[in-house]
Order: sequence, then structure tokens, then C-alpha cells
Amino acid sequence: MGQWPEFVQIKEVGPRDGLQNEKKLVATPDKVNWINMLSESGVKEIEFSSFVNPKWIPALSDAHELGKKIKRNPDVRYSALVPNMKGLELALEAGIDGASVFMSASETHNKKNINKTIDDTYPVLKEVVREAKIAGKHVTGYVSTVFDCPYEGKITPEQVIQVCDRLIEFGVDDISLGDTIGSAVPLQVEQLLDAVLAAYPKEKIIMHFHNTRGMAIANIMTSMQYGISRFDSSIGGLGGCPYAPGAAGNVATNDVLYLMHGLGIKTGIDEKKLQEAALFIQNKLGKPLPSKSLAYAASQQ
Amino acid sequence: MGQWPEFVQIKEVGPRDGLQNEKKLVATPDKVNWINMLSESGVKEIEFSSFVNPKWIPALSDAHELGKKIKRNPDVRYSALVPNMKGLELALEAGIDGASVFMSASETHNKKNINKTIDDTYPVLKEVVREAKIAGKHVTGYVSTVFDCPYEGKITPEQVIQVCDRLIEFGVDDISLGDTIGSAVPLQVEQLLDAVLAAYPKEKIIMHFHNTRGMAIANIMTSMQYGISRFDSSIGGLGGCPYAPGAAGNVATNDVLYLMHGLGIKTGIDEKKLQEAALFIQNKLGKPLPSKSLAYAASQQ
Repeated sequence: MGQWPEFVQIKEVGPRDGLQNEKKLVATPDKVNWINMLSESGVKEIEFSSFVNPKWIPALSDAHELGKKIKRNPDVRYSALVPNMKGLELALEAGIDGASVFMSASETHNKKNINKTIDDTYPVLKEVVREAKIAGKHVTGYVSTVFDCPYEGKITPEQVIQVCDRLIEFGVDDISLGDTIGSAVPLQVEQLLDAVLAAYPKEKIIMHFHNTRGMAIANIMTSMQYGISRFDSSIGGLGGCPYAPGAAGNVATNDVLYLMHGLGIKTGIDEKKLQEAALFIQNKLGKPLPSKSLAYAASQQ
Repeated sequence: MGQWPEFVQIKEVGPRDGLQNEKKLVATPDKVNWINMLSESGVKEIEFSSFVNPKWIPALSDAHELGKKIKRNPDVRYSALVPNMKGLELALEAGIDGASVFMSASETHNKKNINKTIDDTYPVLKEVVREAKIAGKHVTGYVSTVFDCPYEGKITPEQVIQVCDRLIEFGVDDISLGDTIGSAVPLQVEQLLDAVLAAYPKEKIIMHFHNTRGMAIANIMTSMQYGISRFDSSIGGLGGCPYAPGAAGNVATNDVLYLMHGLGIKTGIDEKKLQEAALFIQNKLGKPLPSKSLAYAASQQ
């Protein structure tokens, strides 16, 4: 019955989307060691930080220093979130391989998150995408709240496609569709992918699930049945949900690997090395991370 | 793409499979109040305890008293685990509506769990099933470690079918197939159900998943694609894994409801009432339960 890809590419977003939602600050030298561990795990892309104004996200204020200090593995693409031209300049200086621009499919979420309307966001991203491409960088467009918005409720596939159309027109290489509040069930994934894959080739689409209600792995399964083979995930399930204190955030890379390898799907990632990196950051944060398979693995040591 | 049942029947196993794996003992009056709350949630079957020797499972040593004290809702089937004739006598006296016999598809797990070989277990269960049916009770046969055994590793569908064949021959009404160590991925579910549904009608099969590696909801989705519409789950994800301290046990009823209702599948269960019952027992245990959607819901109160 199952129809799955042979290879799945995982982008590790723990150092950015994970740490961004953790209260405890991690010291820069610890981040460097940790990202170096991730670089040796076989993962092909690491989103190592965000070049937003440090006032917005103090946990990621060392993005520039991090970019300079991490040891580069030539097999890994090091990317970072970039909100505007100032962010892009700093990011380029810090040596990014990839720039991720971001906006929301929900007007209200976009305003609360970026302090701009959707229409006012487009010209900013257009310039960033153009300049990043001129600089020879890979560019990903993140679209958030593609299923539900914490302020507006249901978001339609049409709203998502509208935003994607503009990002593609600006020249992004691919698009990551985010279940920002981790509310989707597989039916919603089907409805969105029916629309999205009628418009774009599946190779351009990355799915970014949060596990806030425990649905992420099921949503990934459904996405794979549509031929999607690229997913974002966070080591150990690091990071929470800004809209629900104590609830879970990004799906855990460890759980995704358990799924993929159990299905016979290749990822290129060494589960053991990933576990070590997860236990390293769990230790720095001083609390258990949400990943179920990490908790299982830790109990067996 | 999705093909799902219109109605899914959930058996709440928290008072038995959940509490059995919790270290902290819950006082009998608290259990009575809690099970009474569950009885009003709309759930159709509650496995309220186990009539095994109290020395084996001290947390469930009040099974008889509980059976006498809980307020019966005529719409609910109250069932309990019954290991042998002595257990059945006590259970009948305590007023069960359903008896669940149990054994393992793995020889080693069966020996460690029941202290008997598989072959020596059959005559015991045969007598219990016969007598329970004579007493007019519903009888479920649990088969544990249907995917992987903590001692033997992979279990084949053929091993599972062999045990099911005998239980059906003894006269059980249905069979619950247990992923006892929460290790299965959807591919294994497909392989098992391909074999099982070639032998038995899908109405006779209940799937019992643990979320030890975070795969349970995905495995339930896969089971539903095979037409399975009966699942066991534990409120809040109560209960851990005896083979992995700190790891998760039964899939959380709350997460299952979130999935089902999101897919438009009816369960007859009121999510709010279920949440209240989950928060009640979470409070008695004094620690957060593993359910992701419960944690989310609690954060919104």
C-alpha cells in the first residue's frame, strides 16, 4: 500500500527554529561544538541561525559569530533566516550557503510576526531573493501558518498558493510550507498538497511540521504518499511553541529518522551521531527534549 | 487519497495499561471518581483493571473493589484483564462486562510475562474463554509483541496468526494486536495487516499501539487505510514502557481524538470531558502526562 520515496532529505533546523523557542540561552562555544557535531552526522543542510534584529530573538544574537566559527563540512549547506537586506549583508559576510526568506500565508500572523502586511512584505523579500541569487546562494522561501493561523483560524490552499506564486516569481529555489502551530491532521495535508502539487513540481516543496498535537509523523507519512521527499526537523524536538507554553514545537529529527530508516528510506544521516548531538544539547539545556525515540534511546544507555 | 472509517471505536485502557506502568499508586476513591468521569465522556469501553495476582501488579490490587464501586453507565462496557480461572471468578464477582485474556506472539516474552510457554498458555486461556462466554461476557484476546519482541527481535506475521488462530478457535469475540514496545513503523503495520486481514474480518481486529518512538498516530493512520476502526488508547498517554524507563507507553486517547475528529471521523467521545479526566489523573500523579494535545490544551486554559 505504501508508496514512499527512496531517499529523503532532512534539513536540520534545531539551531535556528529550535533554539529560537528555548528560554535558556546556549553559549556560543557550545553552539559551535554542537553544530560541528551535527555537521558530521551526515545531514545535508543545517539552518544554523537567523539574521534578524538581535532584539527580536536574543537567543540567536550570535548568528554572525557562529557563521564565522563553525567548522564547515563541504557536504553540508549552511543556511540562515534572513528578513531583509541588512540581514542578508550580515549573513553573506558570515558565509552562509543558503538564505531563507520568510512570510506568512495569514495576514494577521504576518503582521504580528514581521510587523508588515503581506503586500508590504513582498518588495522586501523580492530584493533579498534577487541579491541572494546574485551572490550565488541557494534561496528557500518559508511560508508559515499554511494550515491554521493562531489568530485567523483556517487558511485555505488558495491563500498559500498566492504567496507561493510570488515567492517563485521572485526566484526562490524551493518553498518550505510550515505548520507553524502544529495543528494539521493528514486530511489538511492532503487538501493542501492536492492544490500545491497541481501548481509546482514536488521537488520544489519542503514540508515543515510541528508536533504540537502529536500529528507530525502522520503528516510526514501523508506527504510522502504525495511524493514529497524533503522535510525540516529539529534535533530532539528542540524548541517549543510560542503560542502554547509547555507544548511541543518542531518535529524531532530523531523520530523522523526512526520512521525513515524503519521504512527502508535512506537519509544519509547516522542515527547514533544524531543522538549524541541531541544528548549534548539536552545536557546544555538541562531538561529532557520532547523526542520520543530520543527518550527511548537514552533509557537504553 | 485517504480512505478512512466513518466511526472509530476507542477502548480506554488508561486505568489498566496506563496505571499498571505508573510508579505512583492512585488511591481507590480517586480511581473511582476518575473512572466515573471517563464513563461520562462518551467512550464505549473502559478496561478498568486487571485481575492478576496483586503481587504482580500492586497498582491494580484494588480491581475487585473498583469493580464494585464504580458507577455503571449502561452505554459503557467495563472490561478487565483476566489471566486464569481464579482471576475470572473474581472478575465475574466484581461485575465485569468483558474479559480480556492475554498472551504473547513471542515465546520468550510470553515466558517472561506469564511464566509459561505459549503451548502451556493455551489450555489456561481456553478454559477462561469458555467460562467467560458461558457467563455471557464479551471476550477479547490480547496478543502482545506482534511486531518486535524486546528479547527476540522481529516477530513474523505467521507467528501472530498462529496465536490468533488458537484464540479464535477458543471463541474470543475479537483480537487486540499489541505493539507492546512501541517500535513499529507503518511498513510493519502493512505487512502484519496484509496477513491478518487475509485470515480474519477487519471488524474482529483491534490495534493497540504504544508511542514509545513517536510512531503511534502514523501507525493508526495506516491501520485505518486498511479499514481497521477499533483502537486501544490510554488517556493522556498515561503509563510508561516497562522496557525503557522514562519512555512513552500507550498512545494517548487525547491525541487519537484530535486525529479522528480532525479527519471528520466520529468517536462519540467528548474531547473536553476527556481532557478534564486527563487533567484529574495528571494532578493525582503529580507529573505531566505525555500527550502532546493534552499539553497543548492545558497551556490554553
